[in-house]
Amino acid sequence: MTVLISDRDVAAALDAATTVQAMRDALLAAHAGRLVAPPRASAALSGGRMVLTAGHLTGEWYGYRSYDTFGHPESEQLVVLHDGRTGAVRAVAVGEELGSRRTGGLGGVAVAALARPDAATLGVVGSGGQAWTQVWAAAAVRPLREVTVHSRSAARREAFAARVRAELGVPARAVETARAAVAGRDIVVLATTSPTPVLAAADLAPGAHVNTVGFKQVDRHEFGPDLLDAADVLVTDSPAQAAAYDPPMLAALPPYADRLRDLGAVLAGAAPGRTRADQVSVFCSTGLAGTEVFLLDRLVRVAARL
Amino acid sequence: MTVLISDRDVAAALDAATTVQAMRDALLAAHAGRLVAPPRASAALSGGRMVLTAGHLTGEWYGYRSYDTFGHPESEQLVVLHDGRTGAVRAVAVGEELGSRRTGGLGGVAVAALARPDAATLGVVGSGGQAWTQVWAAAAVRPLREVTVHSRSAARREAFAARVRAELGVPARAVETARAAVAGRDIVVLATTSPTPVLAAADLAPGAHVNTVGFKQVDRHEFGPDLLDAADVLVTDSPAQAAAYDPPMLAALPPYADRLRDLGAVLAGAAPGRTRADQVSVFCSTGLAGTEVFLLDRLVRVAARL
Repeated sequence: MTVLISDRDVAAALDAATTVQAMRDALLAAHAGRLVAPPRASAALSGGRMVLTAGHLTGEWYGYRSYDTFGHPESEQLVVLHDGRTGAVRAVAVGEELGSRRTGGLGGVAVAALARPDAATLGVVGSGGQAWTQVWAAAAVRPLREVTVHSRSAARREAFAARVRAELGVPARAVETARAAVAGRDIVVLATTSPTPVLAAADLAPGAHVNTVGFKQVDRHEFGPDLLDAADVLVTDSPAQAAAYDPPMLAALPPYADRLRDLGAVLAGAAPGRTRADQVSVFCSTGLAGTEVFLLDRLVRVAARL
Repeated sequence: MTVLISDRDVAAALDAATTVQAMRDALLAAHAGRLVAPPRASAALSGGRMVLTAGHLTGEWYGYRSYDTFGHPESEQLVVLHDGRTGAVRAVAVGEELGSRRTGGLGGVAVAALARPDAATLGVVGSGGQAWTQVWAAAAVRPLREVTVHSRSAARREAFAARVRAELGVPARAVETARAAVAGRDIVVLATTSPTPVLAAADLAPGAHVNTVGFKQVDRHEFGPDLLDAADVLVTDSPAQAAAYDPPMLAALPPYADRLRDLGAVLAGAAPGRTRADQVSVFCSTGLAGTEVFLLDRLVRVAARL
């Protein structure tokens, strides 16, 4: 019996702590070789492509996420979970919420692993859905004292700050520049659609941790090489996917590629993370394949317990 | 709002006449270039592959079917229908019934287009789900007087004959050999899992039409080259997919490839079909990509009218 999961169901079942824990488990499973996530596959249709990213947790489940590149206004993603023993379809999630929380959860794992233990202030550039789930997840792994937010639209950044206060119970204020949003902050989130840098590394405080969610390729990037030069610790959730970007991801090119570490390896203790309080750490989010299905499996288990 | 469609829903909404009409419309749309159906895409997981066949009816909808090759006992397929204007997911069908009726419907179109107008007897080799939907669809396009069925299991062929009598209201009997099933029949269906020929072309009556649904490749085939030699009219639902089989499809190799016609072209009057009552016509079913989504779209429209 297949369960159809809506965005509302996802919101009801997956709080930030549950989501971050699931993504931590997924990263460790991928590091251990139990989560198999091949390169994406796609089929060209006239005007766009249907894209599939698949995953398989050996002995447990397999499935995929599908999305398209038509650019339609209400385009919805699908995440499909098959039972790994019978092949039956256990659940299908339709919408954006699962994928959005998945990316937030990966960011939360990065903050938990790499930000200073006493990190308490967060500055975010961007006020969209991705910016929201990053802050939502970060608040679950560090007790935040204040959030500052900048985006181009004054109305949207004010609304974002109000949502942080209302939903996360954290003091928050909108500010007029990206620099003001990130200056002196312990944790920084870049979640914009900007093709050009929105911050200078010199604006960061010593000891800051940065999650980058937006463009990070050679031809378009929300931060420049100066951030990578400033990074003492440089991490991604999928070195294989980072290396496969086309055009290339900045952090996957020399001289950065050799320093780019796997977040799963850091979690497993197989690679070093932050070793000093004054280091700058940078997480380049790629969206490890298979993690949407991993999170849907977790959701179904959580819902069964409720 | 996405609708989840079960096998039971498919059975309730898609009768044979509706299904055959939908597949006729799909073949004509593909012939006119409006139904875009690229080669299948797949992602390798450990132990199996996730496979996607996509389709796009320009201006109307796009979507795909997914299935896997793990060989699990209850493995289910998915068919996903996106609204072509908004991108929203209108419907998701889970199970086997839609794909099975789709293949039956294509066979029904072939019988309608190629069998003699007065064809009234049908012989089928095979008693599985594919054999059933072929007979189910054929009965919607020709008033059948009798069905004869052979398969290896006496119990299953008797049950198949009983089902034909009960559900289609057509006299039917099980027979002990494939030859007895097809001899003198106006319409013949091969729907077996046999890797070696189950009939000889010499067993066919002049003027017979044959639908072949099972293996038809060089390394395994439920009929031999003698059937292709005997065919005055040789047709497939997708010459492109037929040409892409690996190992090659018998009918897509010389000397047959030049004679292999597109069923959509025959329907459109752009290629000749049967021109004489004593000709033997053979339909090689490949399962035109995109037709599962086409049928799901039709189902949703039919259900909305009910």
